Amino acid sequence: MTESNSKNITWHKPLVTQADRERRNGYNGVVLWLTGLPSSGKSTLAHEVERVLFARGCNSYVLDGDNIRHRLNKNLGFSPEDRKENIRRVGEAANLFADAGVIALTAFISPYQEDRDQARALHEPGRFFEVFCKCTLDVCEQRDPKGLYRRARKGELKEFTGVSAPYEEPKSPEIIVETDRHSLEECAEQIIRYLEEQGIIQPAPTP
Amino acid sequence: MTESNSKNITWHKPLVTQADRERRNGYNGVVLWLTGLPSSGKSTLAHEVERVLFARGCNSYVLDGDNIRHRLNKNLGFSPEDRKENIRRVGEAANLFADAGVIALTAFISPYQEDRDQARALHEPGRFFEVFCKCTLDVCEQRDPKGLYRRARKGELKEFTGVSAPYEEPKSPEIIVETDRHSLEECAEQIIRYLEEQGIIQPAPTP
Repeated sequence: MTESNSKNITWHKPLVTQADRERRNGYNGVVLWLTGLPSSGKSTLAHEVERVLFARGCNSYVLDGDNIRHRLNKNLGFSPEDRKENIRRVGEAANLFADAGVIALTAFISPYQEDRDQARALHEPGRFFEVFCKCTLDVCEQRDPKGLYRRARKGELKEFTGVSAPYEEPKSPEIIVETDRHSLEECAEQIIRYLEEQGIIQPAPTP
Repeated sequence: MTESNSKNITWHKPLVTQADRERRNGYNGVVLWLTGLPSSGKSTLAHEVERVLFARGCNSYVLDGDNIRHRLNKNLGFSPEDRKENIRRVGEAANLFADAGVIALTAFISPYQEDRDQARALHEPGRFFEVFCKCTLDVCEQRDPKGLYRRARKGELKEFTGVSAPYEEPKSPEIIVETDRHSLEECAEQIIRYLEEQGIIQPAPTP
């Protein structure tokens, strides 16, 4: 072991930076933070945006209840403190993906402005975009794919957002998608267009 | 809102799978779990492997103390339970990256076989590789870039692995790199060669 090697061994700085990744990828690592009532279409929309991005050659990744609540955050419940910690960890995980040059999409109710603001605060300006999935409670409740609203109305689920727990609408989201007025494809297209306008992804090649 | 759209909205399955990503990328999302004594060179080696992978066109990402302990896991200390939870969360985060088609490198002391086995259990067979960064305690202590061994010997740091807390050597690691006998570049090359042999990355083009 030479002295020079030994010096190398002590060096912990990343040799590949976010900027290196972005230069090669041709798009930026950012976080799209989808928020909205239960059944407002957050997770479905996030996956549709991911599909379009993949077709455009961009790596993205969806963090949602399916891969977070059952795994990274499986030791958290739904108390106010646990909800807060849930959102904090999701924010940090999304930050890691953005740093890795991936477009992270998070799909959580995240009902409190304060928690969303804290997630935003983890990121540099221009790297975090709040996407309000706007949908009337009536429409969400009609959809109710998992029957959760029904159970909440019967009192079987406590502290259910929209029924027995508050949802604070975003004060100044970067994007508002009206999932009760536009199709899934239209909502996804709106987000993709925003990413193009912000210079986060390249414009689609004209045919 | 048409009935067809409404049906779409309820669909939560990923539209882009790990297999889709891997097919396009030409390499597989896996976890390289580096373990070893403090100052055995885990983090430096992980970053060097990442540098080589990036030069070969592969996306990888290093999870280490710098980006995990101060962020995702900043609410954890060094008690046995907290160390266990630290390793659990790192395992889950690495799993997300592998699912996203990224080669995740983790660089944590992770001194207990049981914890490493639990991290392994989160992954499908062939997706998790334990890399033992083997280095004598003497050499680690001579390196001591942050002066931590010195402080541990003076009793200023309690439960310091190698001094006052145990390190359990891996029972059957996929890779053993001897960081006290080989240079940083040689150790990185050994890992890269292993990834080629396992078909996780493509062989380097012959010049």
